[in-house]
Amino acid sequence: MRAALYGGPRSVTFGDRPDPVIENPTDAVVRVVLACVCGSDLWYLRGESPHDLGPIGHEFMGVVDAIGDDVRNLSRGDLVIAPFTYSDHTCANCLAGVTSQCVNGGGFGNHGIDGGQGEAVRVPLADGTLVRVPGTAHSDETMRSLIALSDVMCTGNHAAVSAGVKPGDVVAVVGDGAVGLCAVIAAQRLGAERIVVLSRNPARQKLARTFGATDIVAARGEEADNAVKEMTGGIGVDAALECVGTGQSVATAMAIVRPGSMVGVVGAPHGVDLPVVETIVFRNIGLRGGVAPARAYLPELMHDVLEGRINPGLVFDYETNLDGIAEAYAAMDERRAIKSLVRVGSI
Amino acid sequence: MRAALYGGPRSVTFGDRPDPVIENPTDAVVRVVLACVCGSDLWYLRGESPHDLGPIGHEFMGVVDAIGDDVRNLSRGDLVIAPFTYSDHTCANCLAGVTSQCVNGGGFGNHGIDGGQGEAVRVPLADGTLVRVPGTAHSDETMRSLIALSDVMCTGNHAAVSAGVKPGDVVAVVGDGAVGLCAVIAAQRLGAERIVVLSRNPARQKLARTFGATDIVAARGEEADNAVKEMTGGIGVDAALECVGTGQSVATAMAIVRPGSMVGVVGAPHGVDLPVVETIVFRNIGLRGGVAPARAYLPELMHDVLEGRINPGLVFDYETNLDGIAEAYAAMDERRAIKSLVRVGSI
Repeated sequence: MRAALYGGPRSVTFGDRPDPVIENPTDAVVRVVLACVCGSDLWYLRGESPHDLGPIGHEFMGVVDAIGDDVRNLSRGDLVIAPFTYSDHTCANCLAGVTSQCVNGGGFGNHGIDGGQGEAVRVPLADGTLVRVPGTAHSDETMRSLIALSDVMCTGNHAAVSAGVKPGDVVAVVGDGAVGLCAVIAAQRLGAERIVVLSRNPARQKLARTFGATDIVAARGEEADNAVKEMTGGIGVDAALECVGTGQSVATAMAIVRPGSMVGVVGAPHGVDLPVVETIVFRNIGLRGGVAPARAYLPELMHDVLEGRINPGLVFDYETNLDGIAEAYAAMDERRAIKSLVRVGSI
Repeated sequence: MRAALYGGPRSVTFGDRPDPVIENPTDAVVRVVLACVCGSDLWYLRGESPHDLGPIGHEFMGVVDAIGDDVRNLSRGDLVIAPFTYSDHTCANCLAGVTSQCVNGGGFGNHGIDGGQGEAVRVPLADGTLVRVPGTAHSDETMRSLIALSDVMCTGNHAAVSAGVKPGDVVAVVGDGAVGLCAVIAAQRLGAERIVVLSRNPARQKLARTFGATDIVAARGEEADNAVKEMTGGIGVDAALECVGTGQSVATAMAIVRPGSMVGVVGAPHGVDLPVVETIVFRNIGLRGGVAPARAYLPELMHDVLEGRINPGLVFDYETNLDGIAEAYAAMDERRAIKSLVRVGSI
């Protein structure tokens, strides 16, 4: 089969890989229909985080092509969404809803596990991992929103859930990338009354408003902090969703949130030096988030997509196929695209 | 009047101070009956944190002696508990339950505000701050538990509330000081099924068990982490209450809590370098706490004291009067006492 391959920093190509087969009785093999590129894929592209050479990508959906003898809940031909980590759905962490910390789990597209940016994927712990989509005849618009559930929409949701967004809240979203935009959807879905998005990009501002943003702050740094504070009578917002992952973005989120509230941090910050005593202790600001338990969020979010209540697929503003995988990365790396969709196969 | 006075590191004495009078129409003057020494008082005693020279102490209860013209909810002769910070109870932060971050508030016993370790205190924003105790004829045992509500029991409660302790939880308490012991009471009160306390001190272990601890871990560092992990099938506890305030204690709390859960941090850690990416992000551990909103917790905890359901006054294992204030500090500084009670006046 053909698959995207990592050859080291700045080298994303495609080439041949062995066709995946059932190795364990709990495996399934999924023929990929749609895949996409994640903001976190850019880290190894840029050489900022380590990654094995070989298959890449952790966001995909497709059709079940084969199942192992112990797979009970899936059949050949099922349309399925894969969350970006596989999980058994039976361990203590999974049962507690933290499927991203499954004691038997792991991620796709690294450490010997097939990547989502390829024609097929061996999915370990298939019963626990894959979420079956009812039916197979969905519009392209719906399919784009369904593939967004493999990671980005669940990650945006994790920011909002972690920050404890509740009906009537004033929420700030730090970051206008695909995760930040999905966090806007999530905040609105959880009942936020006012959603302030920090963004300097007109196209992203527009999409944020489509998703439910009520206010845009184009300033940065201290100027942004002051602008958000001013909107809230000097007190700060009820919840801040940190969706960038830099020291600056975490500092901004912690500065604009009111005492007693939470920052939902999903940007997987690199090299952040947190003002623990000053902020967490003396300003009573909480911090929570991390790797999204996509598998746990998937069913309810899929329901909302299928009912037409949310449309996270709008974050895809670039699309290509496996031949164009390098350009799919480049478009995001150069911020020409919010998020790249990769069309791999047909249903 | 006589009051405890700070003369610089290692110097706590008592001497004369002007009798407090009503300065603002929202003030009350409280004649102090009981006061106590806080673990955080030891910081300036040891020269580890700055403190104005002059009055000290922020935990006290007593009898209202005078009220300003705008005070509506208090009368002369009322028995009252003061939370360790004063607050207006009307600003956005107070209304959100974070009275410790009142926009017009402040602390007792520093920056020109009378200390609780003295014969009388001018209490700013008296209506918002003071909590009236029904009746005045309470047993000494009850009075000891009521004064514990001025700070230590509310701070222990804040650890448990911040960590989201809920019925059936397995909870770990890091620290066997007065705050840690009160955190045990709080965890039990919130329905924890199993409460593991990290303690090496037999007397404190015994008191922890009296308060509801089910397990004691006497190990420290990695050995303690492993012991707690082993009790929970390798997963970790549902909530960890950090009640010490060192880098080591925060690291321990974060190591023993399960993914997806929270560390309640009330130890006001000094010089802590948090493993943000490794723990908060990649292990999905949240962190929340800070300065306890004692005024917000006081009514319900007082109700439990008066009904005999909790008895936090048992943390006092040393007592003296204002003459013995230096020894009240020394006993705690040298860990001869868990917490020192200071008898100042009669009702």
